[in-house]
Amino acid sequence: MGSQGKKKGLIIVNTGHGKGKTSSALGVTLRALGYDFKVSIIQFTKGSWKTGEERIAKKLGPNYEIISMGLGFTWLSKDIKKDEQKAKEAWRLGHEKIMSGAYQIVVLDEITYAINYGFISIKDVLHTLNNKPTLLHVIITGRDAPKELIEIADLVTEMTLVKHPYQKGVMAQRGIEF
Amino acid sequence: MGSQGKKKGLIIVNTGHGKGKTSSALGVTLRALGYDFKVSIIQFTKGSWKTGEERIAKKLGPNYEIISMGLGFTWLSKDIKKDEQKAKEAWRLGHEKIMSGAYQIVVLDEITYAINYGFISIKDVLHTLNNKPTLLHVIITGRDAPKELIEIADLVTEMTLVKHPYQKGVMAQRGIEF
Repeated sequence: MGSQGKKKGLIIVNTGHGKGKTSSALGVTLRALGYDFKVSIIQFTKGSWKTGEERIAKKLGPNYEIISMGLGFTWLSKDIKKDEQKAKEAWRLGHEKIMSGAYQIVVLDEITYAINYGFISIKDVLHTLNNKPTLLHVIITGRDAPKELIEIADLVTEMTLVKHPYQKGVMAQRGIEF
Repeated sequence: MGSQGKKKGLIIVNTGHGKGKTSSALGVTLRALGYDFKVSIIQFTKGSWKTGEERIAKKLGPNYEIISMGLGFTWLSKDIKKDEQKAKEAWRLGHEKIMSGAYQIVVLDEITYAINYGFISIKDVLHTLNNKPTLLHVIITGRDAPKELIEIADLVTEMTLVKHPYQKGVMAQRGIEF
């Protein structure tokens, strides 16, 4: 669009209570795959993800990985210690992927929940983002992104729910979860 | 989520001036491909799309097609008659794909521009949507979705721009356009 500046990887945040945060991240990675970018997706929760992505990830070949670390629909399972441990593991892996220099895009899907529950430290996340490889793009998704993440981000989009099928009594459906 | 209702295909609208409308649609189709859904994407404009998707679409196999009908970044090219003709062609194709019964998801990407410029009639679009195959999901993207589309839709998400990289002087980048 004619704007000037040095080339760098973007920190992208998809937040808000609407749908499309994860789907949008997926779509960006799909587009990028067309340029043979190497993509790693760390999924902190299982909530909005089904097996569809993992199946398709296999078809997309060696440049594309989806790693599911989540426990359940939310972090609020019965065993909070175990949840916290899982969250910390997921973050360790995310940190490693970011710092490895092996990817063009790393997605930290629904990491905000783990931060907001206090399972991982926002300071650690910010430190990693501040030290990420210059050209790496990092996409962060989840509701209620902490303001520190908004501040450090280059591109922030808020997804707002205008209308939802549950309001009309339509069932959730295989293959079209958002 | 335990809600009740009969199974039907959804009409999904991604609108607003933020990023992620098309990416989110792409992400949903990617997920659905994991279930071997057949997907057709009609791209009314070329604006936010690069060749990345088309290249990857080839990798995704025979169940996935992206058809680019757009002329330029917006419909406001020098030859408005030609733009209108292209828009009408795109809509004819979209209508055909919807009514064919051959797909589980049809995406009308950035069709709202063509409607808002008056190149295609909202009445025709509503008529097709009202008569679509029951189980077909239709995803409509674009800014300023007409209120009639919002009304007919099952799920509407508004993408709002909170922060944009151009504000920070970062260049648009190959493979990471939104």
